[in-house]
Amino acid sequence: MIVGVMGPEGSYSEKAAKLWMQKYSMSGSELRYFADIEDAFLATVQGKSDISIIPIENSIEGSVGVTLDLLLENEAKIVGEIVVRIEHCLLSKGGPEKVRVILSHPQGLAQCRHFLKKHFPDAELRSTGSTSHAARLAGEFEEMAAIASPEAAECYGLKVLLSNIQDKKENYTRFIVLKAGKKTLTEPETGSEKCSSSACKTSLIVYLEKDRPGALYEILGTFAKRKINLTKIESRPSKKELGDYYFYIDFEGHDSDALVKDALKDIKAKTDTLKILGSYPAFKTFRSVNIDKGY
Amino acid sequence: MIVGVMGPEGSYSEKAAKLWMQKYSMSGSELRYFADIEDAFLATVQGKSDISIIPIENSIEGSVGVTLDLLLENEAKIVGEIVVRIEHCLLSKGGPEKVRVILSHPQGLAQCRHFLKKHFPDAELRSTGSTSHAARLAGEFEEMAAIASPEAAECYGLKVLLSNIQDKKENYTRFIVLKAGKKTLTEPETGSEKCSSSACKTSLIVYLEKDRPGALYEILGTFAKRKINLTKIESRPSKKELGDYYFYIDFEGHDSDALVKDALKDIKAKTDTLKILGSYPAFKTFRSVNIDKGY
Repeated sequence: MIVGVMGPEGSYSEKAAKLWMQKYSMSGSELRYFADIEDAFLATVQGKSDISIIPIENSIEGSVGVTLDLLLENEAKIVGEIVVRIEHCLLSKGGPEKVRVILSHPQGLAQCRHFLKKHFPDAELRSTGSTSHAARLAGEFEEMAAIASPEAAECYGLKVLLSNIQDKKENYTRFIVLKAGKKTLTEPETGSEKCSSSACKTSLIVYLEKDRPGALYEILGTFAKRKINLTKIESRPSKKELGDYYFYIDFEGHDSDALVKDALKDIKAKTDTLKILGSYPAFKTFRSVNIDKGY
Repeated sequence: MIVGVMGPEGSYSEKAAKLWMQKYSMSGSELRYFADIEDAFLATVQGKSDISIIPIENSIEGSVGVTLDLLLENEAKIVGEIVVRIEHCLLSKGGPEKVRVILSHPQGLAQCRHFLKKHFPDAELRSTGSTSHAARLAGEFEEMAAIASPEAAECYGLKVLLSNIQDKKENYTRFIVLKAGKKTLTEPETGSEKCSSSACKTSLIVYLEKDRPGALYEILGTFAKRKINLTKIESRPSKKELGDYYFYIDFEGHDSDALVKDALKDIKAKTDTLKILGSYPAFKTFRSVNIDKGY
């Protein structure tokens, strides 16, 4: 099985993938690295990988916009999720006094906003496709530093100048595991175990007409009256006009549960645009694995 | 009156400020430029500007995370909003064949994601504090290009290589007008006209405990049962733990309206953390101004 991630080696995505492969005893699988989130996502849609593991949300900086957009634009289903602890370090070939340019993924730069403002107010900031790509580039010149994982320092022969530099010490990123194909209701997902409703999550995208007051309230009501717990709700621009949104909703339960089926039927009756992204084991079921790099 | 914006000259923030100054006949006012969103925001909190005009939301890329965080962290109130049409151009000293490095604000880079991927897959991307800062830097080397406004091209003597390069032709950014100080309920806002409820918006931040199912539904219910129309709801990580959020809600009406007062009282009873950011004229009241660069 080919597992697609954002590369190169030393990325947090790689760490997420290794955690997933350990959990499902996929030792025969092969990691394949892609240039950025979009390429890693499209790899599974285009058959270049069997599954792809993609960051969707960080506990400091929030949702990864490009991932949300790609979930809407493509036929891919979520079959699992993984949470990885993020410990950003400042990595460089030279000493901290030489640093003029700091490279990272835009999420990495944003998660370290206070740090950068305080310690490197005059540094030039460069966006890269991934944190590990930043580390690889920083190996070229002493005046460059990367915000990336300690593993990336090892991969590219860099010194760790400072550790845990993100704006809050506790920093986690949630990754989703994707497979090509359209999610069809109540179809049991291959590759992810069947889970009881409390241990499972379902993700969907819904579009609500802008000018219908109370539309979102009605949708949330379909969950509330069934005591289905929402774990996330996020708005994302429809890109049609300002103030017009898609809503991304995660909730507890599997779409083969009678209660969830019933709620989804109710929502379908209220909107033209409902995209079910998948039902999958929630990460909390991972805690038993007790891997130090996990949540 | 000093109006703080993200600079340097040629930024979209400057365009928003000029629109605001025209609307309120503030010809005697002075624009003051700051290095990035945070500095421009803090200028008004720290008394370096009387008002500051800050981007909060784009119709392609969504909310500006740093602005949402600053609204929570600081005592500043929203006294108005302005919408500006965004027409990103690729600007450079040299021809398109020389471009190796593309600079812009992270929002500018994200709004042109498809364009960059298609036409400049190998270019190095650099983040700057603003689009106009990118344009100023791009004036230094022929291999650099900036994603910025046509006005920025004029300011820094650059050629417009390509126009309207964002991923959707229709592209708007909403800016908020900020003043220092804590918002107190039913206080009439100086500097913004008193408006009728349908022409007004109120913005607030609410924190809901993660593990109380239906909490968000209840909050939305306080609006729905009074037929108060929500114009936006956005979640933002609390940064305490993954899956824990603040909700940013905008709705129609002024906090001096009896109905809104009543709804706010209801919400206060449901949560410990309610921050009212302000009641202010909604941008649609600007449409009569009919400035081509506006909405």
